[in-house]
Amino acid sequence: MWRRAFAELLGTMLLVAVVVGSGIMAQQLSDDVGLQLLENSIATFFGLTVLILLFQQVSGSHFNPAVTLVERVVGGMDSWTDATAYIGAQIVGGLAGAALANAMFGVPTTWSTTDRATGPHLLAEVVATAGLVLTILALVRTGRAALVAPTVGAYIGAAYWFTSSTSFANPAVTIGRAITDTFAGIAPASVLPFIGAQLIGAALAVVIAAAIFPRAAHD
Amino acid sequence: MWRRAFAELLGTMLLVAVVVGSGIMAQQLSDDVGLQLLENSIATFFGLTVLILLFQQVSGSHFNPAVTLVERVVGGMDSWTDATAYIGAQIVGGLAGAALANAMFGVPTTWSTTDRATGPHLLAEVVATAGLVLTILALVRTGRAALVAPTVGAYIGAAYWFTSSTSFANPAVTIGRAITDTFAGIAPASVLPFIGAQLIGAALAVVIAAAIFPRAAHD
Amino acid sequence: MWRRAFAELLGTMLLVAVVVGSGIMAQQLSDDVGLQLLENSIATFFGLTVLILLFQQVSGSHFNPAVTLVERVVGGMDSWTDATAYIGAQIVGGLAGAALANAMFGVPTTWSTTDRATGPHLLAEVVATAGLVLTILALVRTGRAALVAPTVGAYIGAAYWFTSSTSFANPAVTIGRAITDTFAGIAPASVLPFIGAQLIGAALAVVIAAAIFPRAAHD
Amino acid sequence: MWRRAFAELLGTMLLVAVVVGSGIMAQQLSDDVGLQLLENSIATFFGLTVLILLFQQVSGSHFNPAVTLVERVVGGMDSWTDATAYIGAQIVGGLAGAALANAMFGVPTTWSTTDRATGPHLLAEVVATAGLVLTILALVRTGRAALVAPTVGAYIGAAYWFTSSTSFANPAVTIGRAITDTFAGIAPASVLPFIGAQLIGAALAVVIAAAIFPRAAHD
Repeated sequence: MWRRAFAELLGTMLLVAVVVGSGIMAQQLSDDVGLQLLENSIATFFGLTVLILLFQQVSGSHFNPAVTLVERVVGGMDSWTDATAYIGAQIVGGLAGAALANAMFGVPTTWSTTDRATGPHLLAEVVATAGLVLTILALVRTGRAALVAPTVGAYIGAAYWFTSSTSFANPAVTIGRAITDTFAGIAPASVLPFIGAQLIGAALAVVIAAAIFPRAAHD
Repeated sequence: MWRRAFAELLGTMLLVAVVVGSGIMAQQLSDDVGLQLLENSIATFFGLTVLILLFQQVSGSHFNPAVTLVERVVGGMDSWTDATAYIGAQIVGGLAGAALANAMFGVPTTWSTTDRATGPHLLAEVVATAGLVLTILALVRTGRAALVAPTVGAYIGAAYWFTSSTSFANPAVTIGRAITDTFAGIAPASVLPFIGAQLIGAALAVVIAAAIFPRAAHD
Repeated sequence: MWRRAFAELLGTMLLVAVVVGSGIMAQQLSDDVGLQLLENSIATFFGLTVLILLFQQVSGSHFNPAVTLVERVVGGMDSWTDATAYIGAQIVGGLAGAALANAMFGVPTTWSTTDRATGPHLLAEVVATAGLVLTILALVRTGRAALVAPTVGAYIGAAYWFTSSTSFANPAVTIGRAITDTFAGIAPASVLPFIGAQLIGAALAVVIAAAIFPRAAHD
Repeated sequence: MWRRAFAELLGTMLLVAVVVGSGIMAQQLSDDVGLQLLENSIATFFGLTVLILLFQQVSGSHFNPAVTLVERVVGGMDSWTDATAYIGAQIVGGLAGAALANAMFGVPTTWSTTDRATGPHLLAEVVATAGLVLTILALVRTGRAALVAPTVGAYIGAAYWFTSSTSFANPAVTIGRAITDTFAGIAPASVLPFIGAQLIGAALAVVIAAAIFPRAAHD
């Protein structure tokens, strides 16, 4: 189990390092905010795809408490002990990843000042997380787990753009992004509303998946 | 059947949400119109590929009345009842997707004011839809249906750029895009000419495919 | 045979339509010339990959007289009659594709005024074509023909950038691009020097491939 | 053996030609430095993926002394003679590739004046190389060597952005990039510190991989 939790920690750390680090680089080098988001989203597409491939056969590459909770509920994880260890590792990894990105760019690790909790953004987080979880459940339940890495990477690459919140869709990543006052940061006061919206989205996806993909491979 | 129609509704809804939502984000964040289209097209490539993968084993992931009509004509769909249910679900989904994108970005759902029906644009829609349908038929008839998702995503990613109309190539998406007055919108008066051009393109593709790929897997 | 030649004509036509059309769109919408080339190269990566997939099982998806000549020399084509039919179809297709792109954007079909034949550009065409042909021979001779489409697409996506000529690497595409006075155009006086450099590059690739990949699958 | 070393030379040469050449093109055509890096990183993603595919079945497509050293240590290479031949070929290839790119763009081959050795950049090189080597080891040890090409390409595509050094992560490429005074150049005085950081990163990856992926396919 420690090996799987370590993989979750490392994976989530590197994921947040990619998200935060590429955001800093984009902000430092580009003027146009849309171009910054394009650079940030392409780097995240590449990085997330690679990281899921890297640890998939060790831990399942959740890197996301919402995904771990869903897997526990639908039967992909055997115990709450495992799920708790995963979620703890993800949160520690998320914080470590933001600190690592800050260190690589020589910027301080400090609270973000970017308020993000508006009505449209919270709706966007519901949609973003529902789409993410639905994507994972759809592929797993139709026997195509080998496609999860590029498909989830592409999903997030699209979701950065089609949701107004730029799709955090991940409580551990949201927490990690609170300690960098850069492009990808989120003010601490916005963290809990975002996590609430993400959990609602995850629950919604479980309901939709039960209706559309009733034959679960691991049920 | 309701499950398949629901998948078509959900898929078309999310497709239009991706197209319209990423267009709004691009327009809000970038100055250069070409950069806006680049952002819009990359998000659409990612999103469309994911959505086709998501629902392919449920409904075949048409999300497009032109594709459903072609499948009915060439033998991929068994009855007009099914085809009608698909097309109805696609149109409802297209409208819902535009409304969802508008809501996520806090912009009103209203008629578009972007006139698009010019001669070169209509020629472009014929070419765009012919290429889309030909791509699908070519892959299915040569036993490579597993490649449809990334290939159709890539096709649309190219077609945003090489056709002057930015390739709607889909009557349901065209209808949905009429109710957002943002980057991806199309004025109601341009909708019918676009749909007419799309159906001509689809018919053209059926003729070309019959000549080049005579051995249809499902005939 | 007519079916294969028709596939070559159609494929080369659509390839040139993608290259020229996306160049016109990029030039009309973007100010920064690098951004124009980025848009042009991404659209070409998508379009070329799709087109190779589309016609690969019909004609082999050459779309390129240099590739057809190499295949004739190394044993992939059985007769000079076939090779001549391919090359004729490719040239007609290249011209038709440029005319189609011009028509879709409402610009005249006319000689390009963009001189491109400089020493560094001709060296670049040698390198670009050598790399292209080497890529194809390497994959075919190691039993990975199924990877040709995305790999050749990616190769051209890179070659637009790492060669100073933006990598025409294709005599039929070069001829087609002579009749559009837009972003992707090439002045008629530069066409023959480019084709000469391309043929030298193709020959170079045959020699290198013979040294590195001696076991040809189809020899 | 000479065939494998020649493949390493050719592959590293073309890799550096892609990195340096696309950097020159980007710098010549675009104003925004972030956009230049985006163009450079996308071209490198495409080019590196293609080059790994090209020579994988001949030499294993290392193109990187850090990778060759790791393979020698973990058992993927049989002798120090082979490893030394590989590393020599990679360094010669790196220098030749920079000279080739310079020639294609008509710029002089000369020492770079871009100092890059700062604390954060060296930390970034440790992280970048650790991630690269971990990616390769993870895929090989879980029987997915066929995924190395696109995954390593995508990894570098992300690492250009999430590390402050833009991820050289390769001693031979670092040496080659010292002889071009363009976008991708690195001043000679920064070369040794970068290589030191890269070797530390590679060693770190070996330790992490031993903990997470204990069952090595080739041990």
